[in-house]
Amino acid sequence: MVTRHVNFNAGPSTLPLPVLERAQREFLDYEGSGMSIIEHSHRGAVYEAVHNDAIERLTRVLQIPDTHQVLFMHGGASTQFALIPMNLRNDAGSGDYIVTGTWGQKALGEAKIVATPHVAWDQSVEGRYERLPKQDELNLRPDAPYVHLTSNNTIMGTQFFELPDTGAVPLVVDMSSDILWRPIDVSRFAMIYAGAQKNMGPSGVTVLIMRKDLIEGARKDIPKIFRYGEVAKANSLQNTIATFPVYMVRNVLAWIEEQGGLPAMERHNRAKGEAIYGAIDGSDGFYRCPVATEDRSVMNVVFRLPSEALDKKFVAEATAAGLVGLKGHRQVGGIRASIYNAMPLDGVERLVDFMHRFAQAN
Amino acid sequence: MVTRHVNFNAGPSTLPLPVLERAQREFLDYEGSGMSIIEHSHRGAVYEAVHNDAIERLTRVLQIPDTHQVLFMHGGASTQFALIPMNLRNDAGSGDYIVTGTWGQKALGEAKIVATPHVAWDQSVEGRYERLPKQDELNLRPDAPYVHLTSNNTIMGTQFFELPDTGAVPLVVDMSSDILWRPIDVSRFAMIYAGAQKNMGPSGVTVLIMRKDLIEGARKDIPKIFRYGEVAKANSLQNTIATFPVYMVRNVLAWIEEQGGLPAMERHNRAKGEAIYGAIDGSDGFYRCPVATEDRSVMNVVFRLPSEALDKKFVAEATAAGLVGLKGHRQVGGIRASIYNAMPLDGVERLVDFMHRFAQAN
Repeated sequence: MVTRHVNFNAGPSTLPLPVLERAQREFLDYEGSGMSIIEHSHRGAVYEAVHNDAIERLTRVLQIPDTHQVLFMHGGASTQFALIPMNLRNDAGSGDYIVTGTWGQKALGEAKIVATPHVAWDQSVEGRYERLPKQDELNLRPDAPYVHLTSNNTIMGTQFFELPDTGAVPLVVDMSSDILWRPIDVSRFAMIYAGAQKNMGPSGVTVLIMRKDLIEGARKDIPKIFRYGEVAKANSLQNTIATFPVYMVRNVLAWIEEQGGLPAMERHNRAKGEAIYGAIDGSDGFYRCPVATEDRSVMNVVFRLPSEALDKKFVAEATAAGLVGLKGHRQVGGIRASIYNAMPLDGVERLVDFMHRFAQAN
Repeated sequence: MVTRHVNFNAGPSTLPLPVLERAQREFLDYEGSGMSIIEHSHRGAVYEAVHNDAIERLTRVLQIPDTHQVLFMHGGASTQFALIPMNLRNDAGSGDYIVTGTWGQKALGEAKIVATPHVAWDQSVEGRYERLPKQDELNLRPDAPYVHLTSNNTIMGTQFFELPDTGAVPLVVDMSSDILWRPIDVSRFAMIYAGAQKNMGPSGVTVLIMRKDLIEGARKDIPKIFRYGEVAKANSLQNTIATFPVYMVRNVLAWIEEQGGLPAMERHNRAKGEAIYGAIDGSDGFYRCPVATEDRSVMNVVFRLPSEALDKKFVAEATAAGLVGLKGHRQVGGIRASIYNAMPLDGVERLVDFMHRFAQAN
């Protein structure tokens, strides 16, 4: 019998147990093919069926319209920080950046190296980003090649619940840490991108959902391996993709469908968020969340205790109780509970119980 | 009981059965940590131990000197085709390219986009590259920033057994399809790079072995995620690496050490090569290998039958007999048997038996 810890890691992160069990069961002999899925050629019929099934399931789950294409790429979201301006800049420079935390800062940093970007918003208080901008605070250019933002900030614990209006300017969103958390209207996005290792699978593959006209208009004066147009033309098999991560993404999508799709994910995620934020707000100030109430992430819950010594004690005792990965990011300290799709409600309830007991004892 | 086929795929390719069995056994609970290795944070102690163990084992197996550093990167060898000139070009352009097949052509193609390269050798006969150059055929520049070559050509079935002398110019070698096939003197190379999916593991990670002075001198005017200097400084954890592929590479390296290291791999690989080439040369011309005898690859054995119809029949009957992945690459046709480290001698013997029976019957 396997002892399974409750894993609050920010990514790579917990995955649905049935998905792990399926991978284990199929690992030596995938569907009677006489070999592991990881030994199949990326150009063979067996892997290609998995690859296309992943694309079809993502299209179904997110209701991706015909105007958009799904791509798989290497390199994580951080590689997209460079590839987005390389592909989408115009001759005047790169896009408008709404900077709401570390990931937005990094995206802006790479854009500065590629071609001059424009900062549409970047407000930090003592190095922290504890709220998100309102529409009228954004300094957007009507002729920008794109607007970039991060929909959920894993480190700061903020999340956009309403997206800014960018008019006719293509909206490009790093959705690494909240893709698939609830239904969205994909037609509002020119490009969504996300590393797999939070809501979709293990690390090693990045999912892009791009408007076809944006793909077609992407630059062709960069190395071929980096061109969105070439990736799209090759159905993401220009070279060997990380086949195991794509296989796992397919299996996670199958699990989401079995659970009832994104409406079920949203109910499940909101229930978990309410349970933890309820425990924080009902603790008479013992636990404090620094994030503005309306911007509190339901994927990464960030909070602090009355002292750093208590933060440490909390993490140590939680770990001993099988609640792991709760230490806050080194940039902000405190506690962080990452509660992506695969975190069961039971795991959150165990954390909430622990929080009550810890507060009473301390 | 699992029926395991003999898998001659060119990559992703067959992996050692004990390595697959270990991954399956450990999949739900890695070393009692209460979670799968793919659920561990890339910044946590458990994954970091795996990551560093992979580097240490590679260093031991290849006897990598202190002058060199091991890096893991995303994107496959094809991404290096762009990153090498981006990082290593000088103000006059990029390096000298010895083009011995499709992969060299692609590397040259990306270099042309980044900064003017120089062709040191490129001979094809009707689009084929059936032999490798001799030293005196190479047109090398003494002031080139680097010389690039492909040590083994998966499509053409050629392999360098003696490397060209490039003098003081750094030698950069795409060793994707023959790294770890035998002991080498790493000090002769300024940079070795290889996608994992032939001799090292599943697809999703690229291994670089680079001279430290080359890393330090690499360009800093490119996006940070692409800079060799940044990758090295972060011990390849600048962003989230594909953790499962790295874990598998570690396990393949452990298997190589158990087998007796690279001297044992070389004996094993030479025995397999002799068995298949022996069957070809002893077939009275029924099987023909187009490659010059001294350049015949012991990783990818390419041969043809008297007609395309017989090629097809051979592949179909072999597949029915559990010998899969033998169809030649679409560029050259015929048959290709990829016999990397993980291909057991028994698998090659089964192929040789089949070749005898097929030649007699046809």
